[in-house]
Amino acid sequence: VSTPDRTDRIRGVLSPVVTPFKADLSPDPERFVRQCRWLLSQDVGLAVFGTNSEANSLSTEEKIDLLDRVVAGGIDPARLMPGTGCCALTDSVRLTAHAMKLGAGGVLMLPPFYYKGVSDDGLFRSFAEVIERVGDRRLRLYVYHIPPVSQVPITLGLIERLLKAYPGIVAGVKDSSGDWNNTKAMLDAFAAGGFDVFAGSETFLLANMRGGGTGCISATANVNPGPIAKLHREWQTPEADAQQARLDEIRGIMQRYPMIPALKAVIARYGGDGSWATVRPPLVALTAEQRAALAAELGRAAFTMPGLGA
Amino acid sequence: VSTPDRTDRIRGVLSPVVTPFKADLSPDPERFVRQCRWLLSQDVGLAVFGTNSEANSLSTEEKIDLLDRVVAGGIDPARLMPGTGCCALTDSVRLTAHAMKLGAGGVLMLPPFYYKGVSDDGLFRSFAEVIERVGDRRLRLYVYHIPPVSQVPITLGLIERLLKAYPGIVAGVKDSSGDWNNTKAMLDAFAAGGFDVFAGSETFLLANMRGGGTGCISATANVNPGPIAKLHREWQTPEADAQQARLDEIRGIMQRYPMIPALKAVIARYGGDGSWATVRPPLVALTAEQRAALAAELGRAAFTMPGLGA
Repeated sequence: VSTPDRTDRIRGVLSPVVTPFKADLSPDPERFVRQCRWLLSQDVGLAVFGTNSEANSLSTEEKIDLLDRVVAGGIDPARLMPGTGCCALTDSVRLTAHAMKLGAGGVLMLPPFYYKGVSDDGLFRSFAEVIERVGDRRLRLYVYHIPPVSQVPITLGLIERLLKAYPGIVAGVKDSSGDWNNTKAMLDAFAAGGFDVFAGSETFLLANMRGGGTGCISATANVNPGPIAKLHREWQTPEADAQQARLDEIRGIMQRYPMIPALKAVIARYGGDGSWATVRPPLVALTAEQRAALAAELGRAAFTMPGLGA
Repeated sequence: VSTPDRTDRIRGVLSPVVTPFKADLSPDPERFVRQCRWLLSQDVGLAVFGTNSEANSLSTEEKIDLLDRVVAGGIDPARLMPGTGCCALTDSVRLTAHAMKLGAGGVLMLPPFYYKGVSDDGLFRSFAEVIERVGDRRLRLYVYHIPPVSQVPITLGLIERLLKAYPGIVAGVKDSSGDWNNTKAMLDAFAAGGFDVFAGSETFLLANMRGGGTGCISATANVNPGPIAKLHREWQTPEADAQQARLDEIRGIMQRYPMIPALKAVIARYGGDGSWATVRPPLVALTAEQRAALAAELGRAAFTMPGLGA
């Protein structure tokens, strides 16, 4: 079996697309597809079912149904990098196989995250079982390192073992450690060999590109997609540092609020659709006071979302 | 609606029953039912789908199928307290409703455990949505406090709110904090009002009974069920402290090894069925050296498992 080539790889900026809910807390496929279309219009790819998508508050059935609806809605599956890593091996296999059947450009895979302090042997076996059971050479698997939430880190040693066992299939990482030194260590160790490092937010987009990285997958790409994608296109221009500073300003505002409810509140406001503010438990929506303060801060910063709700 | 009475409540010692897997890592219902029968013969109830059951490595479908097979296998559903708390609201509702349909005596409910640092408001809403959607007055819900693993604690304030909103339905807690002061605080705050506190291991069984608690739900009840249940029956006798010391000796040995693989290795050895040692990733089985060392320690302690594999 030859190593798959890299020309078709997902690059650039992706958004962990926030998931809209109806009043009964069921996912709303129509608004979800509309949001995906808007993000694509801003040159941002679709890391659906990420942390910021409340993906782990959805059942596997709900995720499969949403994925079907997105593709039926005309979204190019090559632009999809769904999160498919679940606690249960059988769920991860089922969801990953379904994503492959639909032609997803890649999958972003959390480690099983209930049991803590597990060994790299056990994590290797988890990823390997999914890869073997899915059994599709077209699979492009991005491991998802987000220790502040998952509490189960992906070490450099684990990546090395996976790359050795599944070259070409193990395609990259999203590093949401928030620790640039860790991202840099991943770049230094693996980027030259064709392993794609996505920063976990645009905070490190410019540094990541300069270090040989591929792009970023960022919560705030849900609300500020165009300017983030622009920096990815123009990172080698003299304007790059100023663009990065402007991205940091907007993200800095968002980070003063609980991120997921804040993203949804901003989409609700700028898109003129209040129902977007709904979150599933255990999350809670912003209070009216938080919404007003956030809107005021974004207004002062002359923040816009061109084309949203059009 | 009157408050349900307490006479039918689950009491005593329960085991988070370890889940046997076939060589292809699928659950083995036949060996699972046999293990449940043996535990009941030792006067130990069945907290199936607990942490030590690798429940979070099973899909909701796999859990529903196992539950059906256990009841079809003749196990009294009143002795069942399945774990039904999942990350996704819809999974928790589905599994809890199924447990109620089968007549389970109670359910043990983890909070949604992916998102960290969530508010008591969000956790209250999570439990409340499950209770409301299941909509069954026979429900007896035990909240599961296991911060070392879930990283999402159940506070006393949350329990107070739940008890006020759903008296009789919110029936108790399993406290796996490992912190006796926390268990004591729960006993002092709620036990007199009819809230059943189960210690998270037999380490605190005697102290819990003396403090007004109900029993314990313990990993090591998988391998040492009879003596733990005996202490529960005899905690008011002069032999209680000596019995507790003997329980501590056996648990102390088990705790020197990774608990879940160690439980399975002991069942494999004492039941003469090596296939019991299989675990699902991300866990890994004990090494041959670990198995030998554990067997030697238990042998020196004159440990037995009467009736297992009979």
